[in-house]
Amino acid sequence: MGDSNEMETKNIGLRGIKVADTRISDINGAQGKLIYRGYNIMDLTENSSYEETAYLLLHDSLPSMKELSVFRSMISEARFIPKQMQKNMGNWRKDADPMDMLQAFVAALAGYYDEEFSSKEASYERAINLIAKVPTIVASWQRIRNDMELIEPDPSLSHAANFLYMMSGEKPDKDVERIFDVCLILHAEHTFNASTFTARQVASTRAHMYSAASAAIGSLSGELHGGANYEVMKMLLDIGHVEKAGSWIKERVARNERVMGMGHAVYKTFDPRARVLKEMSRQLAAKTGQPWFAITEGVEEATIAEIKRKKSMDIYPNVDLYSASIYYMLDIPMDLNTPIFAISRVAGWAAHVIEEKFAEAAPKPALYRPKAVYVGKDCGPDGCEYKPINLRT
Amino acid sequence: MGDSNEMETKNIGLRGIKVADTRISDINGAQGKLIYRGYNIMDLTENSSYEETAYLLLHDSLPSMKELSVFRSMISEARFIPKQMQKNMGNWRKDADPMDMLQAFVAALAGYYDEEFSSKEASYERAINLIAKVPTIVASWQRIRNDMELIEPDPSLSHAANFLYMMSGEKPDKDVERIFDVCLILHAEHTFNASTFTARQVASTRAHMYSAASAAIGSLSGELHGGANYEVMKMLLDIGHVEKAGSWIKERVARNERVMGMGHAVYKTFDPRARVLKEMSRQLAAKTGQPWFAITEGVEEATIAEIKRKKSMDIYPNVDLYSASIYYMLDIPMDLNTPIFAISRVAGWAAHVIEEKFAEAAPKPALYRPKAVYVGKDCGPDGCEYKPINLRT
Repeated sequence: MGDSNEMETKNIGLRGIKVADTRISDINGAQGKLIYRGYNIMDLTENSSYEETAYLLLHDSLPSMKELSVFRSMISEARFIPKQMQKNMGNWRKDADPMDMLQAFVAALAGYYDEEFSSKEASYERAINLIAKVPTIVASWQRIRNDMELIEPDPSLSHAANFLYMMSGEKPDKDVERIFDVCLILHAEHTFNASTFTARQVASTRAHMYSAASAAIGSLSGELHGGANYEVMKMLLDIGHVEKAGSWIKERVARNERVMGMGHAVYKTFDPRARVLKEMSRQLAAKTGQPWFAITEGVEEATIAEIKRKKSMDIYPNVDLYSASIYYMLDIPMDLNTPIFAISRVAGWAAHVIEEKFAEAAPKPALYRPKAVYVGKDCGPDGCEYKPINLRT
Repeated sequence: MGDSNEMETKNIGLRGIKVADTRISDINGAQGKLIYRGYNIMDLTENSSYEETAYLLLHDSLPSMKELSVFRSMISEARFIPKQMQKNMGNWRKDADPMDMLQAFVAALAGYYDEEFSSKEASYERAINLIAKVPTIVASWQRIRNDMELIEPDPSLSHAANFLYMMSGEKPDKDVERIFDVCLILHAEHTFNASTFTARQVASTRAHMYSAASAAIGSLSGELHGGANYEVMKMLLDIGHVEKAGSWIKERVARNERVMGMGHAVYKTFDPRARVLKEMSRQLAAKTGQPWFAITEGVEEATIAEIKRKKSMDIYPNVDLYSASIYYMLDIPMDLNTPIFAISRVAGWAAHVIEEKFAEAAPKPALYRPKAVYVGKDCGPDGCEYKPINLRT
């Protein structure tokens, strides 16, 4: 019955297969440009905030002063999570993966908030709830697993500053707040990456937004997706000193192993996010006196040179290369790198869930059901003979 | 930058797009045949049990007597879930959707079981844990939300009987046990449906099995996917009497509305599962004296006649049409229909996760990242002008 032609070369990982229209973002891989709702992310990192960017992603236009102020207060009011949820976190293994915790407790939001799930308006409320509560869930877990007292959200703080405060107990200075805010802007959206496609796919069955976001967190938790900047930091720690970067990379490339944080499936030039992150990593290194920017730059240069020499190819840093050192210098525990990715990307997921369910202009896809190619046992149209268990050998 | 050609007709919902090889199951839509690992499900429903079918799905061959006995005891030993998890369930809204609960607590398994996640062997252990624990989670919630005492799993009972016992407190008779067992066999696997594709997609990022299964539950929770037999039962209750079925369906078809439980994207003839379920619904109606089989058959016949008359097309019942009445006559609360789908399908999800991560014969796809078609604001390659907020109108 099977038919195993074609697929081997054509649809691996669905690359190049167009599945739906979107108004949310666009990537120009050749030019290294990333556009959110028409706006270049370079302009947004220079001028905008995470809150404004999230508004843009959800509403397709930049907010007026009044709209932004309402949106900010809705988010800061929604930052609280049920005390009971924090108690339940206390029952988890202290060494549990924070992404597992996040996937479970985002799904659990549906068990605490009694909301009407089907309308578009309800979806916007739920989007705000997610954007506001995901940071609180992550920060709560960081406190709980370290037996530290929980810190209440501070409504006077920005989204970026409030998370750092809830996590560490210290309010960040303006430089740190801005750097972290820009990190959140840069990770907020990236069209149909694996986690966003998971969110859309779950939403395509008409499941609600918490359900879709929880599933997306599961997808992001895999080391091939959100786990990459954790792997970058492990590499940097393993290298340890800037003068070792060259030989470390040389050996790695000689063994034909991938260098984490280098190369991207879509960008064929400098990832624009990497450009911004590189400068911020440089700033933070100057401020803190730490070696991680220099080592990262060593990794970048050595990888470019080795790949050029060995394969005559160009390779560029991706978004994960410089974010690793930034988070490390911000004293964020390494295993929170991926949860922080989720803190930011949840705005994109929410926008995509709304688009998947309610888009009018775009043709609405039915639920995603691709084709599998059966390559298993084939005993003819009626199947293999079912032998009674006592006759099996 | 966008390019909106082609997709409208071609890839909606990824229909017909081949994404990966599988050895797990095959559907012949034209002949109405469903094959699990080479075996016709008709043979399995006649001769096999859910436990044996789950073994087959996971291991690609029917077990020997000893293998089955070991597998059964591994499952019955793994049925317990942490007491603390049951306490946490008590903190949920009593009216929460059981699928939301299931999605959250399956993800939470990762927070209680400290296991090594990356090997193939660990994945098999985790598969057994899921197959064993999902029924316990569902039954626990049914007891907790109704303020009833929890019932411990009974290792002397089969998978089918044990679930019904933990849910209701009563051990089912042999007929009921067998009917429910066959329902579980029939729902265990169906190649790349939306939830299974979600599980594979999450696993493709190298996320672990609990994470993938939780995401699949999210996908299954949507009314277009797992929610269909709930909608069928609502329809049956709304119709109420067999003599009303004809006119009810006639009006519905006249309004061009879909009749739930009728028609399938893949089967172009009788869904083989529907054939088996229809007979079991008939048996249960004879046993209980309830009208739901007769009403369902009335729906089937009226829909076939109306669609023939109005569109000159053939239509057939799908898996959801007769399962609705069966579960109702088994005294299963309607909102547990979809969780029961998950209780069964989790075997298929687990097999697909293992295949996605460890298949050797089949070419391994990279993580799934399809293409989106950008149709949003286009202000040229540098993006729209970012106006300062005080200058926005």
